[in-house]
Amino acid sequence: MIQVGIVGGTGYTGVELLRLLANHSQAEVKVITSRAEAGVQVSELYPSLRGFYDLAYSVPDADVLGECDVVFFATPHGVAQAMMPELINRGVRVIDLSADFRIRDQQLWEQWYAQEHACPELIAKAVYGLPEVNRAQIAEAQLVACPGCYPTATQLGFIPLLEAGLIDPSDLVANAASGVSGAGRQAKIDNLMSEVSDSFKAYACGGHRHLPEIEQGLRDVQPADSVQAKVTFVPHLLPMIRGIHATLYATLLPGTEQDLQALFEQRYANEPFVDVLPAGSHPQTRTAKGANVCRLSVFQPQGRDKVVVLSVIDNLVKGASGQAVQNMNIMFGFDEAEGLDFAALLP
Amino acid sequence: MIQVGIVGGTGYTGVELLRLLANHSQAEVKVITSRAEAGVQVSELYPSLRGFYDLAYSVPDADVLGECDVVFFATPHGVAQAMMPELINRGVRVIDLSADFRIRDQQLWEQWYAQEHACPELIAKAVYGLPEVNRAQIAEAQLVACPGCYPTATQLGFIPLLEAGLIDPSDLVANAASGVSGAGRQAKIDNLMSEVSDSFKAYACGGHRHLPEIEQGLRDVQPADSVQAKVTFVPHLLPMIRGIHATLYATLLPGTEQDLQALFEQRYANEPFVDVLPAGSHPQTRTAKGANVCRLSVFQPQGRDKVVVLSVIDNLVKGASGQAVQNMNIMFGFDEAEGLDFAALLP
Amino acid sequence: MIQVGIVGGTGYTGVELLRLLANHSQAEVKVITSRAEAGVQVSELYPSLRGFYDLAYSVPDADVLGECDVVFFATPHGVAQAMMPELINRGVRVIDLSADFRIRDQQLWEQWYAQEHACPELIAKAVYGLPEVNRAQIAEAQLVACPGCYPTATQLGFIPLLEAGLIDPSDLVANAASGVSGAGRQAKIDNLMSEVSDSFKAYACGGHRHLPEIEQGLRDVQPADSVQAKVTFVPHLLPMIRGIHATLYATLLPGTEQDLQALFEQRYANEPFVDVLPAGSHPQTRTAKGANVCRLSVFQPQGRDKVVVLSVIDNLVKGASGQAVQNMNIMFGFDEAEGLDFAALLP
Amino acid sequence: MIQVGIVGGTGYTGVELLRLLANHSQAEVKVITSRAEAGVQVSELYPSLRGFYDLAYSVPDADVLGECDVVFFATPHGVAQAMMPELINRGVRVIDLSADFRIRDQQLWEQWYAQEHACPELIAKAVYGLPEVNRAQIAEAQLVACPGCYPTATQLGFIPLLEAGLIDPSDLVANAASGVSGAGRQAKIDNLMSEVSDSFKAYACGGHRHLPEIEQGLRDVQPADSVQAKVTFVPHLLPMIRGIHATLYATLLPGTEQDLQALFEQRYANEPFVDVLPAGSHPQTRTAKGANVCRLSVFQPQGRDKVVVLSVIDNLVKGASGQAVQNMNIMFGFDEAEGLDFAALLP
Repeated sequence: MIQVGIVGGTGYTGVELLRLLANHSQAEVKVITSRAEAGVQVSELYPSLRGFYDLAYSVPDADVLGECDVVFFATPHGVAQAMMPELINRGVRVIDLSADFRIRDQQLWEQWYAQEHACPELIAKAVYGLPEVNRAQIAEAQLVACPGCYPTATQLGFIPLLEAGLIDPSDLVANAASGVSGAGRQAKIDNLMSEVSDSFKAYACGGHRHLPEIEQGLRDVQPADSVQAKVTFVPHLLPMIRGIHATLYATLLPGTEQDLQALFEQRYANEPFVDVLPAGSHPQTRTAKGANVCRLSVFQPQGRDKVVVLSVIDNLVKGASGQAVQNMNIMFGFDEAEGLDFAALLP
Repeated sequence: MIQVGIVGGTGYTGVELLRLLANHSQAEVKVITSRAEAGVQVSELYPSLRGFYDLAYSVPDADVLGECDVVFFATPHGVAQAMMPELINRGVRVIDLSADFRIRDQQLWEQWYAQEHACPELIAKAVYGLPEVNRAQIAEAQLVACPGCYPTATQLGFIPLLEAGLIDPSDLVANAASGVSGAGRQAKIDNLMSEVSDSFKAYACGGHRHLPEIEQGLRDVQPADSVQAKVTFVPHLLPMIRGIHATLYATLLPGTEQDLQALFEQRYANEPFVDVLPAGSHPQTRTAKGANVCRLSVFQPQGRDKVVVLSVIDNLVKGASGQAVQNMNIMFGFDEAEGLDFAALLP
Repeated sequence: MIQVGIVGGTGYTGVELLRLLANHSQAEVKVITSRAEAGVQVSELYPSLRGFYDLAYSVPDADVLGECDVVFFATPHGVAQAMMPELINRGVRVIDLSADFRIRDQQLWEQWYAQEHACPELIAKAVYGLPEVNRAQIAEAQLVACPGCYPTATQLGFIPLLEAGLIDPSDLVANAASGVSGAGRQAKIDNLMSEVSDSFKAYACGGHRHLPEIEQGLRDVQPADSVQAKVTFVPHLLPMIRGIHATLYATLLPGTEQDLQALFEQRYANEPFVDVLPAGSHPQTRTAKGANVCRLSVFQPQGRDKVVVLSVIDNLVKGASGQAVQNMNIMFGFDEAEGLDFAALLP
Repeated sequence: MIQVGIVGGTGYTGVELLRLLANHSQAEVKVITSRAEAGVQVSELYPSLRGFYDLAYSVPDADVLGECDVVFFATPHGVAQAMMPELINRGVRVIDLSADFRIRDQQLWEQWYAQEHACPELIAKAVYGLPEVNRAQIAEAQLVACPGCYPTATQLGFIPLLEAGLIDPSDLVANAASGVSGAGRQAKIDNLMSEVSDSFKAYACGGHRHLPEIEQGLRDVQPADSVQAKVTFVPHLLPMIRGIHATLYATLLPGTEQDLQALFEQRYANEPFVDVLPAGSHPQTRTAKGANVCRLSVFQPQGRDKVVVLSVIDNLVKGASGQAVQNMNIMFGFDEAEGLDFAALLP
């Protein structure tokens, strides 16, 4: 039984970690921090957890966290990088759900996140926690940077096509939509129910922070001689709580005759948490609600030269906390599905 | 490992049984029936179950079901009573989620359900499956009639007050609201999203079939010399999928000085699936979403003579399929929480 | 064409006034104030109004407002009372949508609102703006206190029964539910979409500020020799934006033989904005969405001694801004339906 | 005052016509047909219209409809073409909201709609009712084919770019999402609230009937020497009732230096129902809810060669019934905004 610490446990990825780890047979949450709620019982803030935890929030303390086997950061960007050296030096393994260590190019990170990186020396140490690409490195990593929610859904959809060199990497469109839990649990007028329910909108059309992460991740799987992947990425806000749907468009290179359905099925045949649907199916976000799964479909409409990939995840599970637990399982040699092997909540 | 059959597995209580039993360590679903979908894989109709079941719907057959240890009926009323003798005679234990065997007074049943009862000889054999009242009888029963969703939420709220004789049984109000999954998975204009989302209404104000069930259940827990419980029950339809909220009103008898909070806490101290919230809390249906729990609060507004009880459940779990599995656990001597010991999905 | 000022125009009742007045043939909004948004165009904050207003928010100024014929306060409680003397002294007519002048008993107001009343000398001058009760006084009033949303729905439902002396005034239950726009446009975690959608809860069960207002309003219509109306009022929060549904319960006095349907139809026969539905109908909040109407149904379930009244309004229209415009029409002698004569948005 | 007939008045576009025409000063609905609901009052089926219509559904009769000045078809495809000759021969002007006369190429229509066209001789007579392109022809037309909802949002977004020859017509992506009212008011399991709320999905990814309509409309506005517009169109289903959001992607031709914001503003400067938002804004569907408006934004993310256009409408208003009334206004020489000049319902 490993000891788990969670930094920043009042937000939605924090409470989702608690939900998932409550049923994990080999991990136990010993510490959960929140400066604002220090002293408050977890089950007082989240009555859904009554009976599962006898645990109060505490002020983050490196010594206390340092006694854990693994620490999750479920914090806004900027927090993990500030505490990271203290934990890494204590030999703790860290799984960071924030954006702090996802981008390898420090300058690019600083440009998109509009601040100096507080811990550039550890960036190179971080392994990007997409198991479907980096499973072996994750197993050995001390520091894992969990992918963002949009990047998870988007990369899993484009990867088979890019690896196989079937599409023009310079003309990719990722049209994605997220439930509002992706905006976090912060007091903002823009996320009030009266503002966002019963409506739909694009946002950050001029540039979203997940763009450089997506382009980096895609470049990593391209054949060496390819043109660098270039994505037009437009996120949208859905009037619902959980779920991401990415609709991906690419141009097939001339002469491609490959069976796209077979390509996707083969690529993910051994992946426990990627599900390629039967040809002609359209994935619904609800089939992933609460579950650690990405469901994919691939289409070639009208037999023209555009391929369309549909990709759904639960942004809080495969897009965040579930993937984090999956990474933990890989890092500690547990069954990769431990604590994650249950069905989505439908209806 | 017991063998489970499910009759009527295409509806929402059927798929919820599948979800819950997928993680049950001592029960395995061997048969699931549906005349309309015979031959179709469960995971084709419900992609959320892909990877959990390799099972197709079949036409109901008493011989096949007769080989199961337990059969669940997740059917509209009228179906279970027609097949029941064949199963009971084969010695199968049956858990009926429908209304067929809930009402002990045959005539009352026939009046409210507007049809003749096809199997009156087995009515007396049925045990009403509310574990918080009938646990011992459930353990011995061959036929368990699972309570309706509204009756579960309503009875659990009134029981402590009625048992203690603190309220006037002749003046009870049960104002309840349900998510639309309670209306089932049938093609009706009235349940289209365009008709019921973004709106709220009462329905069946003149009389709902759960009324006689509620009144029978309350009568069962009243002291012998009490006036018979009489309830004004008004159900409402919520613009959401899952959840029931009952707001219960009763008049305290003169001279009552009892600590109502303590009364509720004591009554349910040993109940694994009833949670009395701290004084002053208001239960939210989302804290029960997907989980087998009833959360209760009790208030005495303004110190006047009305007591108000708030009661929430997930209509598909503690209000149907979860309670059915809880009953199965009791009947077969399993840990009562087996397969049900996970937290609600929140947010 | 009268000149209109609006104090506090960034909230939902403010923008709803703008929407309604945009089509009013005899009123024109000249001033709209907001300290926080001073200088910002109304249509920038609310793009739904693009093309309807060329008007920017300004800092409230009694001299500027003093030039209007009528000023609406669409502010939190406490604001109107502070500015009121300046406007009343300038002879302006004022329609206050807040709670500041609704309660005639100053001490009671101060107790429920937990502050000293800043302008007690004007309380007696205020007319309670429920046209169905006080139409004549409203016509003459300089200061109208618009009813709260819950009190509007609740009073209109109980009034026919209380006026006729048919029910026991000491045992009234008002179980009401509101869309989240009733909570206003403030940055609070509790009102985030991730917190309140897909869920339902009661709140303020121990005591809500609308209770004394409801009880005062009911007392006003009771026969002189009646016992004072006493209400158990429990509000709930609906996962939708607009709409209030009140489910009202009362005990019929022995010997009552009156045709309740006819009673309601007669009471409201000449009311342009109260609609008594045909017997057996259940009002849906969506049939009032965006429209200035209260729809009512009355039931006597099982022929027992409880009467149930169902009452729906749009909390922002008949429950706030629409009723405010209705009051303005009465005060200025316009057709009472001017600017309000359009159908609800359905579906 | 012209006399209006509506064929197929029980669906959502039918009731929306009733809502809009209730406030039209120069048109009066005299006949509304429905075989299924013949004899039923409009206000019984739609209580939101109580007080606005004293009108019952009747069986469609060409002689009765023939006395109207204009007849709207708010029917599924296939119905209008069957009745059309009778009405056209009687000299009635017809506005068809269905797909029957939108496609000029009979064979293409028959291929996509999988049936023979019953009235090919009138196809050429029909004017495509997009006022922003065909205003002059609409004014003279006897038969107007109203555009589909997706085609309206999509064409208005692409038109300025295609007319100006700035983009590659062979590589257009239209990623669109619609509220569920677009699926109509039919008893289908797929459109139950329990099936479609709290979820999001693409549908008809292999080919949707609005594709040939979109491509025909775009071709019509392209410069004569252009390559024919080719669109990859993927529709999605939103968990809300009203609203369409189209996210449009195109590749700018090399050397383009044009100010895209200015291009859009100029193209629609005189259009009463197309609103180009300020640069950098993202339109929300709620800003069009209930209103006859299309709001547009244009972006060039990262200064790369992709242009992104965001386009929102209410599918039942500018996407159907509102546009139909706009066409009627043009045909009869009324003010184009008559009956349509009100703000969206927000929040």
